[in-house]
Amino acid sequence: MNNAAYELYYWPSIQGRGEFVRLALEDAGAAYRDVAREPGGMKAMMSLLKGEGEGLAPFAPPFLKHGSLVIAQTPNILFYLGPKLGLAPADEGDRHRGNQLMLTVADLVAEVHDTHHPVANGLYYEDQKPEALKRATAFLKERLPKFLGYFERALAQNGGEHVVGGAVSYVDLALFQALSGLEYAFPKAMARTKTGIPRLAILQSRVAERPGIAAYLASPRRLAFNENGIFRRYPELDLDLG
Amino acid sequence: MNNAAYELYYWPSIQGRGEFVRLALEDAGAAYRDVAREPGGMKAMMSLLKGEGEGLAPFAPPFLKHGSLVIAQTPNILFYLGPKLGLAPADEGDRHRGNQLMLTVADLVAEVHDTHHPVANGLYYEDQKPEALKRATAFLKERLPKFLGYFERALAQNGGEHVVGGAVSYVDLALFQALSGLEYAFPKAMARTKTGIPRLAILQSRVAERPGIAAYLASPRRLAFNENGIFRRYPELDLDLG
Repeated sequence: MNNAAYELYYWPSIQGRGEFVRLALEDAGAAYRDVAREPGGMKAMMSLLKGEGEGLAPFAPPFLKHGSLVIAQTPNILFYLGPKLGLAPADEGDRHRGNQLMLTVADLVAEVHDTHHPVANGLYYEDQKPEALKRATAFLKERLPKFLGYFERALAQNGGEHVVGGAVSYVDLALFQALSGLEYAFPKAMARTKTGIPRLAILQSRVAERPGIAAYLASPRRLAFNENGIFRRYPELDLDLG
Repeated sequence: MNNAAYELYYWPSIQGRGEFVRLALEDAGAAYRDVAREPGGMKAMMSLLKGEGEGLAPFAPPFLKHGSLVIAQTPNILFYLGPKLGLAPADEGDRHRGNQLMLTVADLVAEVHDTHHPVANGLYYEDQKPEALKRATAFLKERLPKFLGYFERALAQNGGEHVVGGAVSYVDLALFQALSGLEYAFPKAMARTKTGIPRLAILQSRVAERPGIAAYLASPRRLAFNENGIFRRYPELDLDLG
């Protein structure tokens, strides 16, 4: 335990949605606690989820505690944290453009989740495999190129270095994470797709080389992708649609 | 055409996600254009979607044009508009709590959409009926009570009159819309569910009686729910799980 100002609450064994917040905190070198990974931390997280804290309880992790404020929903946490961490544009319009892009990343992430859980969150993947194959097919054929093509154009339009504003923001970090997760889950499909998104590919490499991110990725704090997370490698879903 | 400051762009024949923005503008009595419902408006909308405007193009409707700013993603539009329309809390923490709740409404709406489109957005409902039945079953059994129970508790915790802050906000209007859509889509399931959410039921009635909303609902500007929108009445999906 330490006296860090920021307390992140998220499932302790997956990257999941919490990773978008972890990356921003790590890039900025902010002192933070990843509470559910500390001894007794899961109990503290479950207590807040059950509404045993003061004020509005989160619907689901991740959530952030900062002083007396407790807020949930990944894009909301990042909209709040971005300016404090020096990872958001100064201009109001750009902040809303950044939030728009982050919400679109969140939509993409939700669709990735549904490739392995198209029927019900409460069932195992093994209980919805035929439906998952149908959904993954449609996702890789139509949705993935649509999302990544959109982000590639947004990046090009903003000059190619950052997706919004004049400097790196949490949205660039989020694109790095989304691309990395997609490459873990769908290596064959992404190898093909990536040739069409050269600017995003460069952005992904540049983010990985940022000092805070590089140190984080090399540390034990970075969990490995796994089949309990959002980005899951099920070879039968990684279709070669060429 | 008029000289209204706000220009909303959304599909002209459905309530859909655009309705959350329409309700806020109508409640506040703001002068606005619903551009795609004007002659030539669809062409203007498609042009902006194709990136033929200046700046970042939207990924999808709805989007809002205000002066030179064009922003998309429903919760983002409302986060921007809320304070300008007098429909957002003054306190920064409450604004982020409101945004958190609005993002959770958006998650609920996305799950409603997927009850009739669990496999692919690009296919018709008729092409995914068996999967839709499975997804709707899980939604009505597990997700709907979880979402509505959460909002009911949030409302109770904030005093029962408004879900966030000390006055009506766009989030209360969004809850009205979500409940109205759910009652259209799942009349049997909602009749049963509603007995467990008394505060939300009262909130829904109170919002419908607000002068701006009542006038709007009685006007031709309010489109009827229909089976091209997000909330669709397919009787075979309105399961009686009692």
